[in-house]
Amino acid sequence: MTGTTLDNTFGRYLLFLGDTVEPGYAKTAFGLRDWARERCVGELALPAATVTTGLPALTPRQAQAQGATALVIGVAAPGGLIPPAWVPALLAALEAGLDLVSGMHVKLAQIDALREAAARLDRRLIDIRTPPADIPVANGRRRTGWRVLTVGTDCALGKKYTALALTRALSGRGIDASFRASGQTGILIAGGGMPIDAVVADFVAGAAELLSPASAADHVDVIEGQGSLFHPAYAGVSLGLLHGSQPDRFIVCHDPGRTHILGLPETPLPSVEAVIALTVALGRITNPAIACAGVALNTSALDAVAAQAEIDALSARLGLPVADPLRGGASFERLVDHCIIPDTEQP
Amino acid sequence: MTGTTLDNTFGRYLLFLGDTVEPGYAKTAFGLRDWARERCVGELALPAATVTTGLPALTPRQAQAQGATALVIGVAAPGGLIPPAWVPALLAALEAGLDLVSGMHVKLAQIDALREAAARLDRRLIDIRTPPADIPVANGRRRTGWRVLTVGTDCALGKKYTALALTRALSGRGIDASFRASGQTGILIAGGGMPIDAVVADFVAGAAELLSPASAADHVDVIEGQGSLFHPAYAGVSLGLLHGSQPDRFIVCHDPGRTHILGLPETPLPSVEAVIALTVALGRITNPAIACAGVALNTSALDAVAAQAEIDALSARLGLPVADPLRGGASFERLVDHCIIPDTEQP
Repeated sequence: MTGTTLDNTFGRYLLFLGDTVEPGYAKTAFGLRDWARERCVGELALPAATVTTGLPALTPRQAQAQGATALVIGVAAPGGLIPPAWVPALLAALEAGLDLVSGMHVKLAQIDALREAAARLDRRLIDIRTPPADIPVANGRRRTGWRVLTVGTDCALGKKYTALALTRALSGRGIDASFRASGQTGILIAGGGMPIDAVVADFVAGAAELLSPASAADHVDVIEGQGSLFHPAYAGVSLGLLHGSQPDRFIVCHDPGRTHILGLPETPLPSVEAVIALTVALGRITNPAIACAGVALNTSALDAVAAQAEIDALSARLGLPVADPLRGGASFERLVDHCIIPDTEQP
Repeated sequence: MTGTTLDNTFGRYLLFLGDTVEPGYAKTAFGLRDWARERCVGELALPAATVTTGLPALTPRQAQAQGATALVIGVAAPGGLIPPAWVPALLAALEAGLDLVSGMHVKLAQIDALREAAARLDRRLIDIRTPPADIPVANGRRRTGWRVLTVGTDCALGKKYTALALTRALSGRGIDASFRASGQTGILIAGGGMPIDAVVADFVAGAAELLSPASAADHVDVIEGQGSLFHPAYAGVSLGLLHGSQPDRFIVCHDPGRTHILGLPETPLPSVEAVIALTVALGRITNPAIACAGVALNTSALDAVAAQAEIDALSARLGLPVADPLRGGASFERLVDHCIIPDTEQP
């Protein structure tokens, strides 16, 4: 049992963008487009929206006719609520034969009109962020298998993309690797996982233990990190995930252009060195052999030359591999080298 | 709003001990006896129980006749469940006119017989461990007022008792101080608080911000700590509580006889020095001026001479006040001195 598991017949998505004008709020839609393209039939946006995934614009009926089985809410609204302006489009999707999928904290069934329409039409309202029942308290015992966790200097700078890119690279080398999703977009991409930030606090480390269970000694679990150990609101989630994941290696994800924690202009971003030191100090409690594999640098705001200069400078400063997983190349291959099981520990 | 607030008409308790034979499971009953004696009418135990609070043994009808308004489940059962063997006594309490109060993770209303009897008899089923709705994400901003947090090398070694004893000592000095409860027993003692370990992970630091709101500059909030930053299962809870509490001072609670984390024989107890260093390093994120006030040593297993020797030795080693709050005395007064607002910071 590894947390929320999506039905395999769950099928194909129509990505709903609401009335979103801020691309930062459309992480789920972009993530699905980039990492689960084959499941995305098209997008649906309200007239006020300016954000687009570039996928075909479809009505719910058109999407259903082209094989979509569910409308996925691909954007977050400020406050985590479903605005009344979205409800008519969601009702139209139910009428067109689609289920609704949401990764928001608020539950779809809390909106009377959606609950009633879903019941009348026999459609499913699927809340990805509902954790499984009966998560145990963590036991802290070492498990078989090899684990890599992505951590960060902040939220929203590439922990999921890095984990997905690493999983793909490991698989490309013939290594048996699994992406373990801990957030709603990752769960939709992977078809399963654990919505770690929605778990009751006492059980977070236990939920992380479920997410990457004991496995074959040569199997690699690549675990999607959450938040940051230095985040004033979310550090506890990050720590529970670290302890339960008991990683052998971790990658620090960082955006060189960010100076402060997102949304908290009074809180400076920690240095990469500080994140490495704290992750090792705290991670040792459940895995004394924890080590940093290197840094994933989000250079999306830079051109290729400037990106490589940042990568080289940070790598020289740290004495560790640094790469932008989305750019790939030789530096990323070196980072991957540092994530695999060393020959000395090969089973 | 400071989390769960008990009705002021809530009144007086009959302490239920179930069939408990292990005193360690009766923390809630002992805590209420020791810190809310005026609210405790008596105790009710099943024939198999060997644990007692020393309060008068009363039937539910006797307790109700003597002014009790609620039966409080004062013991925990392994697994956090309410065993079937307890249900007849709980039903008898409802029949006798008492409400039921529970601090367990499982909800009273999940037991059909209790739910049906409470509805039929118009009694309340009160789950202290249900957090309030609409807890915000933490904002990390500094609040007015002075805050002291108890932290620990482990669970269950005196964080609540230390916070209660410190609050009592501060009040005795004429300082405006509030005990802020973060666990079920503390909430029952204080008549309010926040069941921090039952909060959804994303909101733990935000819940801690609610628990000790902005206050007058000369007001002291004494916040009951939870778990330990070194606990493989609960460290994330401790970290969220630390960040949201943004304490000015903290006391490390420690049991000198304990060598391993409770229930985890493979996990050695951290040193007091390690807990001080990590609490300062992590606490700085929301309060750069955080400092350790000293150590509360649980010497309940030692005689007075041995206790004083332990206290003196640790105090010399650390260069900080060390005391057993339950023994009091001059060493405890020195610890209290280090918890109050320094003259240089007096408003």
